[in-house]
Amino acid sequence: MRHVIGIDAGGTATRAVLLDETGRCLGYGRAGAGNPTSAGAELAISNQVAATIAAIGSSGIVPGLVLLTLAGGLGTQTGPMVSNALAAVGIEAEVRVAGDVMSAYFSATATPTGYLVLSGTGAISARIVDGELAGLADGIGWLLGDEGSGFWIGHRVLRAAAADIEGRGPATALTALVLAEVDDESTPDEDVRRPEIWKVMRRVYGRRPVECAEFAPLALRAAAAGDAIARDIVKGALTGLLASCGALVADDGRPIVLAGGLLYDGSPLSDGLRARYPGRCLRAHDGTAGAALLAVRAIGAPADAATLTRIHETLAPLLA
Amino acid sequence: MRHVIGIDAGGTATRAVLLDETGRCLGYGRAGAGNPTSAGAELAISNQVAATIAAIGSSGIVPGLVLLTLAGGLGTQTGPMVSNALAAVGIEAEVRVAGDVMSAYFSATATPTGYLVLSGTGAISARIVDGELAGLADGIGWLLGDEGSGFWIGHRVLRAAAADIEGRGPATALTALVLAEVDDESTPDEDVRRPEIWKVMRRVYGRRPVECAEFAPLALRAAAAGDAIARDIVKGALTGLLASCGALVADDGRPIVLAGGLLYDGSPLSDGLRARYPGRCLRAHDGTAGAALLAVRAIGAPADAATLTRIHETLAPLLA
Repeated sequence: MRHVIGIDAGGTATRAVLLDETGRCLGYGRAGAGNPTSAGAELAISNQVAATIAAIGSSGIVPGLVLLTLAGGLGTQTGPMVSNALAAVGIEAEVRVAGDVMSAYFSATATPTGYLVLSGTGAISARIVDGELAGLADGIGWLLGDEGSGFWIGHRVLRAAAADIEGRGPATALTALVLAEVDDESTPDEDVRRPEIWKVMRRVYGRRPVECAEFAPLALRAAAAGDAIARDIVKGALTGLLASCGALVADDGRPIVLAGGLLYDGSPLSDGLRARYPGRCLRAHDGTAGAALLAVRAIGAPADAATLTRIHETLAPLLA
Repeated sequence: MRHVIGIDAGGTATRAVLLDETGRCLGYGRAGAGNPTSAGAELAISNQVAATIAAIGSSGIVPGLVLLTLAGGLGTQTGPMVSNALAAVGIEAEVRVAGDVMSAYFSATATPTGYLVLSGTGAISARIVDGELAGLADGIGWLLGDEGSGFWIGHRVLRAAAADIEGRGPATALTALVLAEVDDESTPDEDVRRPEIWKVMRRVYGRRPVECAEFAPLALRAAAAGDAIARDIVKGALTGLLASCGALVADDGRPIVLAGGLLYDGSPLSDGLRARYPGRCLRAHDGTAGAALLAVRAIGAPADAATLTRIHETLAPLLA
């Protein structure tokens, strides 16, 4: 019986699972930020190694392959660096690296050909063919793309509130929701502007641009309550997701996996995608399960629906 | 006869003019970046002092007041710091600070009550009453506002080109114009995406976000040539400028000064503002002239149309 490790390395946490070639999960480990781009290579790799060691635990099992998935994940030098770092702690294993779109896709289905649409802080669509990444649309970042992402929505929420406060744009329920989030006790720099606008400016310019994504849920809440501006924002986000999805998805009946914090079951964006592609949409599960399936697949073992089911069933108790 | 100094301190250059209380310009000096926010307080003030010394030259004239205008310019500690820096080189003068919207406005008219609309890298509208700043709309930065600015337009140009390249958005003549600007010899990070999208990403994420403004002229060029996407962008920019302007401008016949690099005579944005406010729009001139008029006004001397004309007529030869 061969064993592998699947790792889902994210911006805030790195999760690793040890499993056998049938998909039976035997150990789970967790560490901090694992994305080299945001956390720095040294810290990210250290956390990837720590999660791997924790997943192996006291089992004494030597994995033959480590499959690491992370945002971007293409064309990086991460693979050899992780391989060296693992060897340094006595784990001699082949390391393969894939994008987190792959782990998200294979968390929901073992079908080797299909599509993924993700909307979280960013937004990306992907086409997977025979288990390999074959196409990407969007996912090019908050300044150039990420249409329909949390950033895209939150950014518009903030701009709409600012325009309302200044009398440049229509009144919207978003303004009160935004102001409740940015309230502070500080005094404005001058009194030509309304103090509310200074509160919004201090909050937004005091943090990284991508943190605008924190305001995205306000649009969903206000849209559900009937606010016209919020509805327009949500509708625009769906248009963006449908456009990037539509650049890749063929009328082939293949599955479309919906991933990311904004595509939870029942969200208006998820509902819109399901209405456009009836019967084809699946919700993504834990990316660690997808990394585990990719690891099984990478050693040439059967990675079918039964394997994925076994991964989910045996991973769940380890997370409890 | 009393004398004053007017300074227009900008992001790339600081210009100072020495004039008498009738508006007759006697000396001109120029130095580097003078905005404390972008250049840092020490360098900015050093350049403001250098420009002042150069304007005084060998005249032996001691100005009674220095009026400094700069972007933002409100609620800063700049005034006392400049005053101390001037005193250190033997120039004992009262220093007053005003926003660059004031120097832009008074470069075009001596009428003490009116409006300004500016679209350069950023965008802002202002109401001036009795020579004092009485209201602002927008000018809250590229992330939250600046609707209709160079950033706003250039950002949309880049997003439209990216969507076109990826097949997520309509074809547009902007794409070829953008690619001509971002072409490089580097190899892409991976080959799942088209290499063109990597060129755009490297350029945009390799510089500061505000530098997207460099792509704004492409929208004006493509719109003039009939490109539908470019026309929509320019139309949206005009809508934004009209909204911020409309939040302040009353139906009072007062002048509206058009300032900034995108509101040159004959630009579609300028034409759109002139069509909305017929007979009221004036093009801003050199901000140094406006700072000079503000300086004359600050010592209580007549600052009327004749004074402004004299400033323009006597400043021009000094710039030659």
